[in-house]
Amino acid sequence: MARDDGRSPDQLRPVTITRDWLAHAEGSVLVEFGGTRVLCAATVQDNVPRWRRGSGLGWITAEYAMLPRSTNTRSDRESVRGKIGGRTHEISRLIGRSLRACVDYKALGENTIVLDCDVLQADGGTRTAAITGAYVALADAIAWMRKRKMCPGDPLVNSVAAVSVGIVGATPLLDLCYTEDVAAETDMNVVMTGSGEFVEVQGTAEGIPFDRSTLDSLLDLAGAGCAELTALQRRVLS
Amino acid sequence: MARDDGRSPDQLRPVTITRDWLAHAEGSVLVEFGGTRVLCAATVQDNVPRWRRGSGLGWITAEYAMLPRSTNTRSDRESVRGKIGGRTHEISRLIGRSLRACVDYKALGENTIVLDCDVLQADGGTRTAAITGAYVALADAIAWMRKRKMCPGDPLVNSVAAVSVGIVGATPLLDLCYTEDVAAETDMNVVMTGSGEFVEVQGTAEGIPFDRSTLDSLLDLAGAGCAELTALQRRVLS
Amino acid sequence: MARDDGRSPDQLRPVTITRDWLAHAEGSVLVEFGGTRVLCAATVQDNVPRWRRGSGLGWITAEYAMLPRSTNTRSDRESVRGKIGGRTHEISRLIGRSLRACVDYKALGENTIVLDCDVLQADGGTRTAAITGAYVALADAIAWMRKRKMCPGDPLVNSVAAVSVGIVGATPLLDLCYTEDVAAETDMNVVMTGSGEFVEVQGTAEGIPFDRSTLDSLLDLAGAGCAELTALQRRVLS
Amino acid sequence: MARDDGRSPDQLRPVTITRDWLAHAEGSVLVEFGGTRVLCAATVQDNVPRWRRGSGLGWITAEYAMLPRSTNTRSDRESVRGKIGGRTHEISRLIGRSLRACVDYKALGENTIVLDCDVLQADGGTRTAAITGAYVALADAIAWMRKRKMCPGDPLVNSVAAVSVGIVGATPLLDLCYTEDVAAETDMNVVMTGSGEFVEVQGTAEGIPFDRSTLDSLLDLAGAGCAELTALQRRVLS
Amino acid sequence: MARDDGRSPDQLRPVTITRDWLAHAEGSVLVEFGGTRVLCAATVQDNVPRWRRGSGLGWITAEYAMLPRSTNTRSDRESVRGKIGGRTHEISRLIGRSLRACVDYKALGENTIVLDCDVLQADGGTRTAAITGAYVALADAIAWMRKRKMCPGDPLVNSVAAVSVGIVGATPLLDLCYTEDVAAETDMNVVMTGSGEFVEVQGTAEGIPFDRSTLDSLLDLAGAGCAELTALQRRVLS
Amino acid sequence: MARDDGRSPDQLRPVTITRDWLAHAEGSVLVEFGGTRVLCAATVQDNVPRWRRGSGLGWITAEYAMLPRSTNTRSDRESVRGKIGGRTHEISRLIGRSLRACVDYKALGENTIVLDCDVLQADGGTRTAAITGAYVALADAIAWMRKRKMCPGDPLVNSVAAVSVGIVGATPLLDLCYTEDVAAETDMNVVMTGSGEFVEVQGTAEGIPFDRSTLDSLLDLAGAGCAELTALQRRVLS
Repeated sequence: MARDDGRSPDQLRPVTITRDWLAHAEGSVLVEFGGTRVLCAATVQDNVPRWRRGSGLGWITAEYAMLPRSTNTRSDRESVRGKIGGRTHEISRLIGRSLRACVDYKALGENTIVLDCDVLQADGGTRTAAITGAYVALADAIAWMRKRKMCPGDPLVNSVAAVSVGIVGATPLLDLCYTEDVAAETDMNVVMTGSGEFVEVQGTAEGIPFDRSTLDSLLDLAGAGCAELTALQRRVLS
Repeated sequence: MARDDGRSPDQLRPVTITRDWLAHAEGSVLVEFGGTRVLCAATVQDNVPRWRRGSGLGWITAEYAMLPRSTNTRSDRESVRGKIGGRTHEISRLIGRSLRACVDYKALGENTIVLDCDVLQADGGTRTAAITGAYVALADAIAWMRKRKMCPGDPLVNSVAAVSVGIVGATPLLDLCYTEDVAAETDMNVVMTGSGEFVEVQGTAEGIPFDRSTLDSLLDLAGAGCAELTALQRRVLS
Repeated sequence: MARDDGRSPDQLRPVTITRDWLAHAEGSVLVEFGGTRVLCAATVQDNVPRWRRGSGLGWITAEYAMLPRSTNTRSDRESVRGKIGGRTHEISRLIGRSLRACVDYKALGENTIVLDCDVLQADGGTRTAAITGAYVALADAIAWMRKRKMCPGDPLVNSVAAVSVGIVGATPLLDLCYTEDVAAETDMNVVMTGSGEFVEVQGTAEGIPFDRSTLDSLLDLAGAGCAELTALQRRVLS
Repeated sequence: MARDDGRSPDQLRPVTITRDWLAHAEGSVLVEFGGTRVLCAATVQDNVPRWRRGSGLGWITAEYAMLPRSTNTRSDRESVRGKIGGRTHEISRLIGRSLRACVDYKALGENTIVLDCDVLQADGGTRTAAITGAYVALADAIAWMRKRKMCPGDPLVNSVAAVSVGIVGATPLLDLCYTEDVAAETDMNVVMTGSGEFVEVQGTAEGIPFDRSTLDSLLDLAGAGCAELTALQRRVLS
Repeated sequence: MARDDGRSPDQLRPVTITRDWLAHAEGSVLVEFGGTRVLCAATVQDNVPRWRRGSGLGWITAEYAMLPRSTNTRSDRESVRGKIGGRTHEISRLIGRSLRACVDYKALGENTIVLDCDVLQADGGTRTAAITGAYVALADAIAWMRKRKMCPGDPLVNSVAAVSVGIVGATPLLDLCYTEDVAAETDMNVVMTGSGEFVEVQGTAEGIPFDRSTLDSLLDLAGAGCAELTALQRRVLS
Repeated sequence: MARDDGRSPDQLRPVTITRDWLAHAEGSVLVEFGGTRVLCAATVQDNVPRWRRGSGLGWITAEYAMLPRSTNTRSDRESVRGKIGGRTHEISRLIGRSLRACVDYKALGENTIVLDCDVLQADGGTRTAAITGAYVALADAIAWMRKRKMCPGDPLVNSVAAVSVGIVGATPLLDLCYTEDVAAETDMNVVMTGSGEFVEVQGTAEGIPFDRSTLDSLLDLAGAGCAELTALQRRVLS
């Protein structure tokens, strides 16, 4: 099956990670997966949420949002509506959990790093692009802290990358763009460490329930995709 | 490894499903997984959300909430705080998606069924109990509609059940209670159809990332658990 | 005049109070007035609101809410609407004031007891059922505290019970069910102590204004009803 | 017992009702009960709330609010806090119900009258002053409508007035000012028609529960007070 | 060109400033510019916002609001809508900035003065009337503080007054009433000190952009108007 | 006086306007004034707000927001706080009014253009950069509409550009960067048409009130700055 943009089923879109995109943030990255563009900013704060004070442990949290015209039709601002939607909440939580998987809270000390992931342009896979880019911003923010001797140890114990996979017309595809995502029978987001283990597996049957062998083929695809993204992250950071 | 309540690793807690728990709802169920008690009410509405009008298709949606003292310490009401938290949003969306997997929208006609899942008492696995119970309430509501000839066809094309699995102290366990859930290194919620296919797979490494074989063992456990729950649903409905 | 359920005008519906309905709360009761079912949970907190700190005095507060499908037609969740309605506010405040009437703040010490009254099923008289049940939950919570020597004295100086009365078709009736409530020309909620004095009297002419003798007959009915409920509370607690 | 301002126990404060205080409203009144000053504005709208459309019946509703510095210490604006408090809700509902008692919905036709009662200065009894003043604004608005032949009949079938009574130091007092209200053991708000019947009776034991004879003496006082206010309303409107 | 109310283009409406309109506030003024009536209350608080604590400096802030029926058609309450509109925000900020221009924060000490400006009746120029009146309430509140020796020095270093000007039918007009404001091509609000300098200049082309000479003529008009208002403020305060 | 970045007092920062920065929007621009970077997206909607329907006239509106880490320290998201701040409201309204000054509503027909101005990086003058950039996005969106024959005429009757000016250390400066803005005694934002007339003049004395000659010198500076920006807009659009 030929994909609209000519990719093979197991091929990522062109992925670029541009560091230091912002002047003020301790770490910042513009990550692009094809037409998807997410601005990831890491902010270092020398304190932790109330429930964690005095523990000696740090914290990582994330907020995800889309600009109103990042998509094909304009969507209302959540600030104007006065509340955050379920999808936004869900993705913010996913990004936070994913990045916490590569951090040693004790080595971080009582500091917080906030990852703001703002989608400037959306073409499918915004949450996985956000995780992949935010990891690089996080690494830069941690380097910034270590230069200033703010951390008792090295908090960065692993890396994380993420990719979407799905079944479109019975074919398992890697890194779905928007039109593929809409057409997918099954959609899965996979977050993996640099050492190839799973951090998150979220698979959803959009239409037709899927069997174990389909699940297996999707996990295989995702594993290869994440390995490629991990290699890119290393290149960009070195 | 012995579990606190003496269960074997692959054993469900005592599960009961009490139909017609409420006088007014078109379908209602009190579902209990051990100490977890969720009240599921299905409401039939003879219209659909604005974006679906004129399509001839129906809709299924769900709302999940916890009573403030369902848990060990009291939590503030979301109505008092004036907003719904991320976790609540996430679970409501999961329940809705799961139940939509067993319904034929066309056979439902332009009607909506709302599933309210209110946790009266929480001891782990509230979202999977909610899905398992809500399915029965949904089936009752559909039967109620069919008796009144409200549907053009039979909307119930499958059944769904759900269970949590996790790794505690390196052992894969089925149907975690609260203390196990807190101790779990990896936590997974699995929603399956009555015919044994996946609707949702949501696995999260709470501490240590997990490898493919761990994932496989958890899916095996979940498959067996869901089959048992499916059998119970059938018994209860017959 | 025969009532729909065959009761005489001065007869309560079957009332049951089930203690310890919840595993976690310090006091918990499922109270039923016929088809009205309210879950009352008492939570002990070892602090008081900011404005009361350092006074040596305790505090009692209450929150009332209805599950969306407790009623004949589903109502939207107040958490989803993002604000609490006037009726909910009004009833929460009534329950709080009523229960404060039976407590000695000094003997309670700087502790707070929160009463959560959640209506699982509504058939008229939910606020009076809530007060009657919450009193028992409160008594259990205070006993729990006294066993742990948390209070400087015995905070429970009285009991409270509540009942609705109203004029339907010119006849004064005790303990209105939903259909009677809707048909009532005048509706009154009366909260009384175990020693027969008034804590709250709230009478409203729904259609036709009422005269003094009507008011007197309603107060008589309510007095007898509250005495009966007081007797039941004592039986249940002993 | 001498009252601070030298009144006898059964004496109202000086009460003034100034009509046409605002240029734009269809009816408007500045009502003063001693130091309590409430601005009541009646707005005529040629439609009814959605749930009443097509019924041929009108509607009366009310909103109550206090200016931030109407009281001794400044209170935050509810608009700034982003939500309406329980007390505000409760009083708005009370005013609306009270005024609905003197209106024939059918004669009003499908029109709504909104009564805005804004407390400019508070010294006790703001809700009863608001009801007493709002009645006059309502009468003016109805006269305005009738001049324009907007109503199928005469909607004003009665009048309403309201007053507070309470027990201070064992003495029943009429029309409590703020310092008396704070000191009251029992506090009651009574709304009556011009023909001397009850519309609302709301009695609350603030400290000590009260017996039937106390209740009777308070109702006697309130009856006389409301009769006096009714006479004033008539004088002012003629 | 004759104005509707017979004024000449450079003439203010009748302006009155009534001090001590409220019993409780430390300073209070009812200011009237023709049919525009604004109640200004100054509240003294012996603390400052969190971000200013420990600085030794005071703070001045303001809140503006309109009663729902101050205008020709009723507008919804911002408290009911649950949020403050852009116009309200903008004017509150303008009033606060304007009054801060005449205060020495150091001489004020760590105290805050809140100016509440509530529009009772609106007929154009509510924000400029509010500033002009609030200055007098502020002066009274500062005098109140100085009598109690709350301030380290004399915080009142200048006075402020404000007026609107605009172009209607090519003619520059002073102090627009509502109908003139609606018809204006250009609308400008000018805040000036008692010594004739500018604090705020806010000019907006409502329809046709304006040139420099138009701007100059408007500033001339405003200068004369503010001088007149300053003289009135002095008279009223002496 | 030398400015930090070596500019002369009447010199703009390097200004760039990049068109078509987004794939989906009908017009989109990344505008940069030195370190200030604003993404402006124009969305065409084939309808108008409710209050304008049936008038045959179009509408232009704008929303302004800052990304949380566009500034030196992170600010909370307004969506998370659940409300829009006063500054955001004020600037959104300013941008909308400014752009409406160059549009003929009748020639636009019953269509709306929404301008979203999101600050990616802030270094002073974000609102004036937003207006200057949004004009170009608007022109592109109108060209897009005209190609599709959506407009009855040519709605673009003029152009608008904006710049900030201020007094720092007694010197009037053009186009303040953040550190200059913070140090300014007087701060003014000026919006002008391409033909050199004023659309908005907003001058604020941050510390010391300013006299007429200061105001004149600031308007001179702004006039020259806007002319330069107008020339750039023309170059970019041709």
